[in-house]
Amino acid sequence: MAHIRVPEELPGIRGLFAFRPQTAKPMSELAEVLLHQPGTLTPAERELIATYVSSRNDCYYCQTAHGAIAAHHLGGNEETVHAVKRDFEHAAISDKLKALLAIAGKVQQGGKNVQPEDVERARRQGATDLEIHDTVLIAAAFCMYNRYVDGLATWAPTDLEGFRERAAKVARDGYLGVLGYIQAAQAGR
Amino acid sequence: MAHIRVPEELPGIRGLFAFRPQTAKPMSELAEVLLHQPGTLTPAERELIATYVSSRNDCYYCQTAHGAIAAHHLGGNEETVHAVKRDFEHAAISDKLKALLAIAGKVQQGGKNVQPEDVERARRQGATDLEIHDTVLIAAAFCMYNRYVDGLATWAPTDLEGFRERAAKVARDGYLGVLGYIQAAQAGR
Repeated sequence: MAHIRVPEELPGIRGLFAFRPQTAKPMSELAEVLLHQPGTLTPAERELIATYVSSRNDCYYCQTAHGAIAAHHLGGNEETVHAVKRDFEHAAISDKLKALLAIAGKVQQGGKNVQPEDVERARRQGATDLEIHDTVLIAAAFCMYNRYVDGLATWAPTDLEGFRERAAKVARDGYLGVLGYIQAAQAGR
Repeated sequence: MAHIRVPEELPGIRGLFAFRPQTAKPMSELAEVLLHQPGTLTPAERELIATYVSSRNDCYYCQTAHGAIAAHHLGGNEETVHAVKRDFEHAAISDKLKALLAIAGKVQQGGKNVQPEDVERARRQGATDLEIHDTVLIAAAFCMYNRYVDGLATWAPTDLEGFRERAAKVARDGYLGVLGYIQAAQAGR
C-alpha cells in the first residue's frame, strides 16, 4: 500500500500523477521532450538509458515500463533490454550508446562521478554536446522519477503483457496522454 | 569548465537552461509548483528541504542558491540554514519539519529507504498526505537538479553576496523568471 492515499486503480507514477496534477504536468512534459520528441538519439536509445538507470536504482515499475517501451521501439527485442541492464558493455548496441550508458551510470551514482574521460569517450564515438546533455539529464531525471515512485511506495503490476500493451501506446503517442486521463479522473470524482 | 559548451556568463543550472530551453521550461515549472506556489508548507520550509537534499548530494551551487533563498524567507537567518544542513534534528525548526527532513534524507539515499514509521512520525506531527507527497517529490527533484548541475560540471560563483541578491529576487518572483532571460539570450545570439 502506498504511503499516501492515491487512486488505487492506477499503478506506479500514474497514481501519483492523478494525486497531484500540478506536478504531473511538468514531469510529463519533461519526459516528452527527453524521450519522445524527435532527436538525434533514437527513442529506443533514450528509453534504454532510462531503463538502465531505473534498473540501477532498483525501481521495478520504471525499469519494467520503460524497458517495455524500449523493446517495442526495437521491434519487440526484449533480449537487448535485458542485456543492457545486465552488462551493457557486452550488449548488441552501438559503441556510442555504450559510452552514453557509461555516463548515465556515473550520473546515477552522483553527478561528480562524471569525468572528462567519460565525456571524451562519448565524443570519440560521435556523441554531440546535445546528446551528452540529454544523456545526463535523462539519467538525472530518472533518479527523480525512481525515487518518487518508490519513496511513496506505489504498487506495480506483475503482468508483463499489460506493460507491453501500454508500451505500444506510449511509444506511439508519447508522454502527454497521461494528462488527459488525469483530467478525466479528476472530473469523475 | 563544463563538459559541454554552455553560455559562459551563466553559472550552475542557468547555463544549462540557456543551452536547452525545451527542458528548462518543465524543470522551472516543476520548481515553481513545488517551491514557490502557495501551499501549506511555507516557502522557507520547502527551500530548507531542497537545501538539505542538495547538501547531502554535495552540490555546491544548489545548496548555496537554495540556502540563500531559504535564509531570505527566514528574514536573513542564515544560521538556521547551516544548522539544518549540519544536524537538522537539533536545529531551531518545528518537529514537523524535522520529520519531513528525515523523509527527505531517506529519499536522497533511495526511494525504498522511506519506511512506514518515517511517514507515521510525520503524520504524528500533523503532516498531511499532500505535504508528505511534496516532501518526497522535492527531495527526488533535487536528486535530479543536483546531478544535472554537477554531472555536466557547471561552474558556480563563490561570492555569497551575489547568491543573496539573486535569492531576494527568486523569493519574490519565483522560478519562471529564468525563462524570460533565456528567451532574451536566445534572441541576442
